Amino acid sequence: MTPGTIHGVGLGPGSPDLMSVRADRLVRGARHVAYFRKAGRAGRARGIVEGMLRPDVIEIAMEYPVTTEIPLDDPAYNQTLSSFYSEITSRLADLAHAGEDVVVLCEGDPFFYGSFMHLYTRLRDSVPIKIVPAITGMSAAWTATGIPVTWGDDVLSVLLGTMSEDELTRRMADADAIVVMKVGRNLPKVRAALGRAGKLDRAWLVECASMAAERAVPLAEAGDRTVPYFSIVIVHGQGRRP
Amino acid sequence: MTPGTIHGVGLGPGSPDLMSVRADRLVRGARHVAYFRKAGRAGRARGIVEGMLRPDVIEIAMEYPVTTEIPLDDPAYNQTLSSFYSEITSRLADLAHAGEDVVVLCEGDPFFYGSFMHLYTRLRDSVPIKIVPAITGMSAAWTATGIPVTWGDDVLSVLLGTMSEDELTRRMADADAIVVMKVGRNLPKVRAALGRAGKLDRAWLVECASMAAERAVPLAEAGDRTVPYFSIVIVHGQGRRP
Ligand SMILES: C[S@@+](CC[C@H](N)C(=O)[O-])C[C@H]1O[C@@H](n2cnc3c(N)ncnc32)[C@H](O)[C@@H]1O
Ligand SMILES: C[S@@+](CC[C@H](N)C(=O)[O-])C[C@H]1O[C@@H](n2cnc3c(N)ncnc32)[C@H](O)[C@@H]1O
Repeated sequence: MTPGTIHGVGLGPGSPDLMSVRADRLVRGARHVAYFRKAGRAGRARGIVEGMLRPDVIEIAMEYPVTTEIPLDDPAYNQTLSSFYSEITSRLADLAHAGEDVVVLCEGDPFFYGSFMHLYTRLRDSVPIKIVPAITGMSAAWTATGIPVTWGDDVLSVLLGTMSEDELTRRMADADAIVVMKVGRNLPKVRAALGRAGKLDRAWLVECASMAAERAVPLAEAGDRTVPYFSIVIVHGQGRRP
Repeated sequence: MTPGTIHGVGLGPGSPDLMSVRADRLVRGARHVAYFRKAGRAGRARGIVEGMLRPDVIEIAMEYPVTTEIPLDDPAYNQTLSSFYSEITSRLADLAHAGEDVVVLCEGDPFFYGSFMHLYTRLRDSVPIKIVPAITGMSAAWTATGIPVTWGDDVLSVLLGTMSEDELTRRMADADAIVVMKVGRNLPKVRAALGRAGKLDRAWLVECASMAAERAVPLAEAGDRTVPYFSIVIVHGQGRRP
């Protein structure tokens, strides 16, 4: 029996028509569609393809184990996640070995801070697996600001809101253009670091880039609100331009 | 008269089916299609949409002035480019003011080191202008290596082969994941900097990502060949993974 292929399909930043033509075809044609979601939620990646799936599609909701009670640095945290990934891996591998193709839905680009990467490294040696790259959340975010992000020799640093304030500050001070991912609850810390790096006045906050709820404002005008999971902070480069 | 819209349409890394559904629709429907090219060449962006344009399309080839004789730091270089951009700007603005929409073809993502940005900043205050983000060359490049680029809190630094060897070295040493754009003739310098930063053994060279000529190899095995314009060097991050 020829094994099926696991497709890690990047869906892009959220707007369905920002999916690639290749992703659109794979999603519409898929008999097995898998996606991560939090227990009891609809799933963000699943939301993007609403209305696109085959009527006879078989959906595989991969529900994250609840880890909110376990501290990030407790070995039990990694163990819980790791056995979750292994369990899913064997489920997907079984399908592939039975000759079935599976489309795994990924937010943004699969290889850029994606959850699918954890399945990919576990599956790649045993089943055929293909990746469809996609538009990242950050591309949609800088587009939403209406300002180009990098010019000439501008260095772009992609940072994470989960880093320490000192590390954020040091790296922000040293970059021309900055993208901060995983902002969410870390916004006060990101704001403080931008202030210390002298770049707060040039920063933008972008929420839900390319989605219905898209909002792009200078960070100084954003106020003290809680921002959604899909939030990115951007500082544009100011390099050479004729 | 309602003015037309100038669309800066990102085409993605090169494979036509990695264009977004939105870009695909705009390109196929466009009456006026503009693109940059070097004098006497077919144009890289134009090549991606081969076979997709309307039979009655009107093409606007925006031919770069020949600047090879002028040193980069001579003011004449910037003046030549600047008047070229102004000339094109008025041509596109005239079309928009006459009610025509124009699709400007952009390689990769328009706001990420794109040539269209020079037209955008000159046009944005006088005509309606919209940007379609796209898959970047680097997303296709790390996909081609078959290895995820960033995990957990990995910092990604996007560097340019045109930077000095010292600056490249310093920034490479300080990054978790690295993308070097504009490699081309700068490959020997990039290789030297990677060596000094202690990361040469982890670097990959990707040529023509997602195109027919795609080639992804560890840089150490790449040999001393001349690499094409579409070349990117990647060092993958090795962050936390459960
Ligand atoms: C786990 S990472 C996944 C990134 C994704 N693979 C990509 O290519 O963009 C999740 C983070 O991406 C950012 N993000 C992704 N899509 C976004 C969007 N449409 N608008 C704003 N932020 C987004 C947010 O910062 C979020 O915390
Ligand atoms: C002027 S920049 C334009 C970048 C483009 N706007 C993007 O989003 O990727 C040109 C550089 O992009 C890189 N590049 C773009 N597409 C590529 C591809 N498909 N394969 C390899 N490199 C690519 C090369 O390093 C090239 O020198």
